[in-house]
This record gives sequence, C-alpha cells and structure tokens, in this order.
Amino acid sequence: MRKNVVFLLVLCMIASFLVPMVIQAQEKVVIGVSIPAATHGWTGGINYWARVTQERLRGTYPNLEIILVTAGSAAEQANGLEDLYAIHNIDALVILPFESDPLTDPVEVLKQQGVFITVVDRGLVKDGIADIYVAGDNHALGRVSGEYMVEALGGQGNIVVLRGIPTVIDNYRFDSFMEVVEKSDIEVLDWQYANWNRDDGFQVMQDFLARFPNIDAVWAQDDDVALGVIEAVKQAGREKELFIVGGAGMKEMVAMVMAGDPLIPVDVLYPPAMIATGMEVTALYFVSNASVLGEYILDATLVTPENAHLYYFPDSPF
Amino acid sequence: MRKNVVFLLVLCMIASFLVPMVIQAQEKVVIGVSIPAATHGWTGGINYWARVTQERLRGTYPNLEIILVTAGSAAEQANGLEDLYAIHNIDALVILPFESDPLTDPVEVLKQQGVFITVVDRGLVKDGIADIYVAGDNHALGRVSGEYMVEALGGQGNIVVLRGIPTVIDNYRFDSFMEVVEKSDIEVLDWQYANWNRDDGFQVMQDFLARFPNIDAVWAQDDDVALGVIEAVKQAGREKELFIVGGAGMKEMVAMVMAGDPLIPVDVLYPPAMIATGMEVTALYFVSNASVLGEYILDATLVTPENAHLYYFPDSPF
Repeated sequence: MRKNVVFLLVLCMIASFLVPMVIQAQEKVVIGVSIPAATHGWTGGINYWARVTQERLRGTYPNLEIILVTAGSAAEQANGLEDLYAIHNIDALVILPFESDPLTDPVEVLKQQGVFITVVDRGLVKDGIADIYVAGDNHALGRVSGEYMVEALGGQGNIVVLRGIPTVIDNYRFDSFMEVVEKSDIEVLDWQYANWNRDDGFQVMQDFLARFPNIDAVWAQDDDVALGVIEAVKQAGREKELFIVGGAGMKEMVAMVMAGDPLIPVDVLYPPAMIATGMEVTALYFVSNASVLGEYILDATLVTPENAHLYYFPDSPF
Repeated sequence: MRKNVVFLLVLCMIASFLVPMVIQAQEKVVIGVSIPAATHGWTGGINYWARVTQERLRGTYPNLEIILVTAGSAAEQANGLEDLYAIHNIDALVILPFESDPLTDPVEVLKQQGVFITVVDRGLVKDGIADIYVAGDNHALGRVSGEYMVEALGGQGNIVVLRGIPTVIDNYRFDSFMEVVEKSDIEVLDWQYANWNRDDGFQVMQDFLARFPNIDAVWAQDDDVALGVIEAVKQAGREKELFIVGGAGMKEMVAMVMAGDPLIPVDVLYPPAMIATGMEVTALYFVSNASVLGEYILDATLVTPENAHLYYFPDSPF
C-alpha cells in the first residue's frame, strides 16, 4: 500500500515534468526551409543535409512538418517565401539567403507576420530580423589555416595564396590568415582572387607555377579552388614540392586527408551541415523550452588524418 | 506491379537516409551533467531546467542516458567529475562550472580521455577544452537595458545603478550599458556594487534614496538585486516616482512585467534555461549529423508585457 503511494507520487512528479511537452506535442508546427538549388559543390552539400535533417526531424517529432524549397536565384527565393507563408502557413522559416540584400525585405515581411526566423550562413543586411543566426567562423577559418601552415612549415618557406570572391567573408578569412603568417618567417610570394571556383583555381595556380620556381605550400582557402590547384600542380609534375590547404570539408578532400595524402595533409571545416544545425535548433524552439534565440557560430575545425573519419559522409554529394 | 517497383524505390531512398540514424540509435550514449547546487535563485532555475531537459531527452532518445549531479563547491564539483568518468563512463560532459579556475584542469583531464565537453555560462580559463560553449550575452544585457532606459525616459532624467560582483561579466554589462546611456542626456547620479544579492540591493538602494530626492529610474542589472530595490523603494513610499530594470528572467519579475506593473515595466533575459540549450545541442552531437562544435551565445531578450508569457514558467523555482 505504502509502496503504491510512493509510486503514485513519483508518477505525479514525472507527469508534472511532462505536461508542457505533451501540450506542445499536440500542436502541429510547420517549418519552412528555403535554400539555394545545388548549383555548385557546397550548395549540393546544403541540399543533402537539409533533406537528411528533414527526415530525421520527421522521424523524431511527428508534430513537426518540414517544407523544403530550393531556388535558382534570389528573386525565385523571395517569391518562394511568399508561397511558404500564404500556402503552407509556416510557423518558422530557416533560410540560407541566396544573397543578403534582396532577401532582407522579404524575410522581414514574414517576421512581421509572426514567423520565427532562423538565418544560416549569409546574414541579412538589417539587424533584429533573425531570431537565430547560425554560421561558420570565417575569421577562425583563416586563423586555423594560418596556424597549420606555420606549424607544418616550421615557421619558414614560400607560399602562394588563392583568395575567394572579393567580399567581406573573403576579407575576414584572408586578414586572419595573414595576421598569423606575418608573425612567422614565411614569405607570401603573391595572392590572387580565384573566386571560389575550380577553373579559376587551375588558371591562377598555373600562373603561380610559371612565375615561382620554389613553392612550399598553397593556401587555396576553398576546396573547389583546391581541386583546380591540384590539377595544375599535377600537370606541372610538381606535386612532391608542396602541399595544399583548402577549406570547407568537401568529401574528396576529406578522403585524401583520411588516406594520408601528403599533397592534402589537412582540411578546414566550413560545413554545409550548418543547415542541419539551423533546422535542429529551430525545431528545439518548438519541442523544448531550451533558450535558442541567439547566434551559433560553428568552429573551423582542422580536419586531420586522426579525426577525418568524423567528417567523411560517403552519401553526401559534397 | 509498376506501382510496387516505384514504392520499393521510394522505400530504398528513405532507407538510405535512415541508415546513419539507425546505427547511431543502437549505441548507448551517456551524458554527464554537472551543475552547482540550488544555492540561490538563478542556480535554482539551472537545477529545474536540467531536470526538465533530462526528462525530455530521455523521452525523446531512449539510447541517451543522462546522469545529473550537483555540487556545493568547486572542489566537490571537481571530485564529482572523476566519478562521472570512472563510474558512469560518460561519453560527454555538460558543465556549468562553479568557478572557472579550479574546474579547468579537471575538465581538461576528461577531455584528454576523449570525453566530449560542453561548457555553459562560465568559461574555462584555457582555450581548446570546450567543444561547445553556450552562454548568455553580457554585453547585450547591458546594451539592451541601456537602450530601454533611454527610450523609456525620453533620453533624459536621473538614474542610479547597482552593479554586480566586481568581475569581467559585471564590467561587460556595465560598460555596454554606460556606452548607450552616455549618448543621451540621462545623468547617472551614482553607482555601487550590490553583488547580485538581494540584501545588498536593499541596503544600497536605501542609501541612494536617502541621498537623492529625485530618481527617475534604477538599473539593478539583476533580478535578485531588483527584489531588494523594490523593498527599499516601497518602504520609502517612493514607488510612484521611478521604475526598475533588473535582469535574468526571474519568475516573480516576469510576472510583474506580464501584469503591467509600472514599477517593473520590463526585464532582460539571462536565462537559466541555457543549461537546457547546452544539454540539447550536446544530444544533437550524438543523435544527428548537424555541426554543433562552436559557440552559441544567447540573446539578452527584452521581456515586455507583450512577450512575457513566453518567458513565464510557473513550475520553475526561479
């Protein structure tokens, strides 16, 4: 009898914890996810992780409906937002904006309708719209790459640098890299923009190889560019002379790191799985009482032969 | 027949998504959570949210085991960490350190054993130990409080300020507040330390009331201090003359905001539910492939009569 009373008391205590969850679990919540179409490698990864996460969340939380839409341009993405609200009646939006400027006003319109807003990677140009902001750490990507370069070269040698597209993001990465490297005896022979593009990476590197007879390392900053650099280096037969540091976490590069390829000894993460993070923390807003409003800045993790298996996803296109 | 083939294909596609989840779901994962005992209001909230989240995660992910331990001192917390590893064999640790200095080495020992480390609120004194860092935004707490003060007073008037314990956190809050207020015509009559303590808040405010015949607003920075301030103001019968801005999101204060009490028109969040955030994102590391390594800095949300219901938790002790 006494045991039963204790049991009932324990049940009541547990029930009092569960009440808020149960109430939430009955409500249907619709989360819209708007991302660029898979036009290049990294956005291919974004599309893959958005789909994987849609499935995971569906399986875990039956009351969450996740509507995933892709767009081929900023204008198409803005139009898609209207549909998400008018047709699907979304409670929350997770968006990786095609471009910051043209998406700011359309997202703000949804915010004013009471939609919860999570922005991933590229911020909007106006403060106060995003409830959650999830992004990679561009400063750290440059710093971590620079620190590896200094360590691997023993603080001296000749390097060349291929930058991205002239943007604030590229400046953050480059300035943080240079800040580290300038404290060493490493000489940066030259830097050129390669626009986060494989073909440009190939051409810029061909030029570097023609001009500089002695290159110890290449900072390509981006894995697409690094693929072009690898091609140019191999065509010139100079792959024994140097190593290359890219950036992002592309499957092919992580595989080379994992295999111990001396040409690609490490990679630095700027992971497309950040869209998964944005979707997961948005889901937490509805299924838990955890505090989620804020900024979640993901590490630029150095991928080495030791940890590469954690970042190799064979099913991902990127 | 054709329909069956399509159906099978769809099943295969879904299965290929589910494979990584299923593999993970079979592994038992143990997460240790180490927090200070409920010695004052805010840590009472920490304990409440840790328990609520333990239940939520148990209900959602049967393969996660969450071991929750509390400590009355930094030394007790350090000893408890050894037990978490030696007895419970934890895969991950979520810790809100009692103090930063004495916990840094004990946490680093676990890190070196391969334990995944999430640090909440008070950082460790050494970089590179925490895989995830979750915290409130002390700069924003000061800034948001200052911005409200300027707006509510129309940019002019006399205020007094009660600071916390002389620490880096208090400096961040105070400096950010002053930066905003100094751009207005508001005069800060005086500031004194009230040590995030109700009794000190009462005494400091009694002194301010005796010295200044005309006070338009009080920045108490903390809800425990604000309770002491309220008491002093009511004893002096001067509650019609001024308003008070605290900070944290204490239940009693949020209730007053919700009720439209002119003495407590707003509150600013530094939510104890951040322990829930730390536990949830640590769980995501094991149950999803979302990128979670990084820093999650939570907003200092302004609690107003319009949104107070979102931040009022009647079952919480805080």
